[in-house]
Amino acid sequence: MSKRVFLASKRAVVSYAPEPDTGQLRAWLAPGGTGNVVAEQAGYLDVAWIVSADSDDDHRAALENPDGMRIELPSGRGVRLHQLRHDRETFRVVQNFLTAELMWAGNNYGWDRWTQPSFGAETRAAWERFGEFTEDFAAEMLRRSEGEPDPVFLVHDYQLVCVPARLRAQRPNAPILLFVHIPWPSADYWRILPRAIRTGVIEGMLAADTIGFFAARWTTNFLACVADLLPGAEVDVVAGTVRRDGHVTRVRTQPLGYSPETLHRRDARLPEGIAEWAGDRPLVVHSGRTDPIKNGERAVRAFVLAVQGDERLREARMLVRMNPNRLYVEANAAYRRRVESAVAEANAELGPDTVRTHCDNEVGHTFGCFERADLLVFNSTVDGQNLSVFEAPLVNERGADVVLSEMAGAAEILGPVCRTVNPYDLLEQAEAIAAGLLAAPAERAESARARREAARPWTLESWVTAQLASLEVG
Amino acid sequence: MSKRVFLASKRAVVSYAPEPDTGQLRAWLAPGGTGNVVAEQAGYLDVAWIVSADSDDDHRAALENPDGMRIELPSGRGVRLHQLRHDRETFRVVQNFLTAELMWAGNNYGWDRWTQPSFGAETRAAWERFGEFTEDFAAEMLRRSEGEPDPVFLVHDYQLVCVPARLRAQRPNAPILLFVHIPWPSADYWRILPRAIRTGVIEGMLAADTIGFFAARWTTNFLACVADLLPGAEVDVVAGTVRRDGHVTRVRTQPLGYSPETLHRRDARLPEGIAEWAGDRPLVVHSGRTDPIKNGERAVRAFVLAVQGDERLREARMLVRMNPNRLYVEANAAYRRRVESAVAEANAELGPDTVRTHCDNEVGHTFGCFERADLLVFNSTVDGQNLSVFEAPLVNERGADVVLSEMAGAAEILGPVCRTVNPYDLLEQAEAIAAGLLAAPAERAESARARREAARPWTLESWVTAQLASLEVG
Repeated sequence: MSKRVFLASKRAVVSYAPEPDTGQLRAWLAPGGTGNVVAEQAGYLDVAWIVSADSDDDHRAALENPDGMRIELPSGRGVRLHQLRHDRETFRVVQNFLTAELMWAGNNYGWDRWTQPSFGAETRAAWERFGEFTEDFAAEMLRRSEGEPDPVFLVHDYQLVCVPARLRAQRPNAPILLFVHIPWPSADYWRILPRAIRTGVIEGMLAADTIGFFAARWTTNFLACVADLLPGAEVDVVAGTVRRDGHVTRVRTQPLGYSPETLHRRDARLPEGIAEWAGDRPLVVHSGRTDPIKNGERAVRAFVLAVQGDERLREARMLVRMNPNRLYVEANAAYRRRVESAVAEANAELGPDTVRTHCDNEVGHTFGCFERADLLVFNSTVDGQNLSVFEAPLVNERGADVVLSEMAGAAEILGPVCRTVNPYDLLEQAEAIAAGLLAAPAERAESARARREAARPWTLESWVTAQLASLEVG
Repeated sequence: MSKRVFLASKRAVVSYAPEPDTGQLRAWLAPGGTGNVVAEQAGYLDVAWIVSADSDDDHRAALENPDGMRIELPSGRGVRLHQLRHDRETFRVVQNFLTAELMWAGNNYGWDRWTQPSFGAETRAAWERFGEFTEDFAAEMLRRSEGEPDPVFLVHDYQLVCVPARLRAQRPNAPILLFVHIPWPSADYWRILPRAIRTGVIEGMLAADTIGFFAARWTTNFLACVADLLPGAEVDVVAGTVRRDGHVTRVRTQPLGYSPETLHRRDARLPEGIAEWAGDRPLVVHSGRTDPIKNGERAVRAFVLAVQGDERLREARMLVRMNPNRLYVEANAAYRRRVESAVAEANAELGPDTVRTHCDNEVGHTFGCFERADLLVFNSTVDGQNLSVFEAPLVNERGADVVLSEMAGAAEILGPVCRTVNPYDLLEQAEAIAAGLLAAPAERAESARARREAARPWTLESWVTAQLASLEVG
């Protein structure tokens, strides 16, 4: 490719250790999560990756490395990282409140409407801060692409939704892609946000040439939001385009499943004590971040109903595997407490130590659980894609069936080879858990084979190729 | 009209008093509410009205009057009422749980998804009961129309959504209209319901020839739900039709504003003490049932921000007028408590007795408040239509401006002549309240005139005519 690519996303969870002899920081990336596929994408394209500095170490590393810093990725590839030093208070407000709390709830159906949300002065001030944060990213991308005749801008995820408009203002002809990794809600729900935000975000996005989502459901919802809020825009649902003020934006569904290199290099191992506890019993695994969309509480309650409903399941055990995530967000902390309560109740009903939780950030533990499971439950209330639904069947060693929420993006590809469920219906989930555990071995093996086959094509490489092709620069 | 019309809806809040000499029950209808416009429609069409018996008195009256009972309507018209005696437990489950709680939340965006709802055995059993309840209505309508060569069936509101399919099975060629008085949610939200319910309801509805909603937003959402859940159906969004198994259903927006006779015969008076308390001060009135969609809590909090933000509003007072409604539903009881807390906090901030609540079922009090208001706030989180938004400006005597939620069906007609707001944005509502109270007299008068003119055409008569015309039997 003759054009140079500039890639940005907000988040890079970088860990550091000082080199013993020089005291210089050595950096590596915490593995796991959809966010990190952006890093893998940078590695695959061999381009620089522009992100926000977050920790004190990030800021120190950014100051020490004005031309960026080499970091190692879980795939084994390396990438050059440029960390942006925002005003600290602006970054704090944007990260902790505006994106992780407000915009996350706004895209993931997190408000009940009757009691929450209520927008006041705090939201208005945070939206002002978001303008600064956006400007920082656009300025850095423009600065790094200065003098470049044909730059291509890849802007990733919901925190950077307004960056395309700022880039477009300076680079009227550059190809710009915005990829949103999380769900896009229906028009009635998106309307909950204050006018300035809901319209500002959509206008900021439409400056891109291509907007990508993981699932057709989010693409459809986004087009409906445009039609609802911008009556002057021409929305063509069939073609997936929006024409506005002479500019055409393509809205595309571009699924991603997994990074083959990351899977290949996995260091899978069960958390301590789990092998002994599970023995050879049928083991149900629920896995996800400490995030209410992951819906572990209902998974546990459905497991209880399943075991109570069928004598043959009395030996079954369940592990709720959680990665601690943004526990400073009250919704996440409350979710973790609800899961722990549901587990305590389950053990009171079914017998002590029938259900366990395990909570740490070791991606090797996650893969270990994926390998050992006899049944995997991914019952998210909503989920942009959920890469685990692709990864787990590809590494599982026991023909584990998959109970999959119909509201996970992944269901559009893997639904036909999983047991899809309504994530709110406990009985339906209980029936799916029982059926998955009790299926005959031959049926299990055939279903596992079909799932691997369905998952395999959706590699990081195919996803990156689709992005560039949709910009017509592939 | 040569065809005979058979009209059904679930709810008739009938009050009784025994005739002093005969001991026979005399019956009349509690006034107010969207439900009662169905009664007025029956009176206007001069047809029988089939409803559920509810109270012990209803059951006694139904037994004593096998051919129905004459009741007087708030408009002064009379109507013959046929009360259906369901199995008492079936009626209790359908009324208190399945419709007032589950289906109400399902159409009015009442669940947060992260903690609620969870469907289990209770929901499945209630759905079975709903089949019986539906069958009772269909059987009664069919029995009363037996021998009638060309009956027309008008089926009203969400509790009877499955009746059309049962009628159609016996009367393949009869015109059937189903009118839904409440909002229809987006496809992602409707999907929350268990599969049997979400699909069963839509299939039950599509047996009608016409499905009516108060607002285009609900019509659009309904068509999106059909496309989402019934891939075999052909949905034509522009024509507003669904073709399925050879049957075509028209989906129509048919707004209703008010009943001229009911307004004309109103017995308007302020609740005791309100005239003295308000004096000639600027009075903000919020009015609605004790139902969380009415959003009184946020209205009070916005009023506080408005008064705190402008010295000229320090004399302003606010009255939250509530009609007690289904307080056995926990969501409604919790709503009333939240409103009372918000009022207590407001008085702590602004000075004692600045904000009051008034709660009773006297429709005369509601009209009295509408007449006296200097500003009306209808800021529902969502609302099928909200007839008060039409009624209040037509009776108000002080040029009161109207702050109106963009999520009320009424906003599609009256939005351009009201101050439309996002019901979650406290600052926007505070700004609208301040602007509405502080507008110059000439501007207020002109705006009030424009509102009356915009509201006036939307009479009960025009609504009934639209229903029959859309069945091509007008």
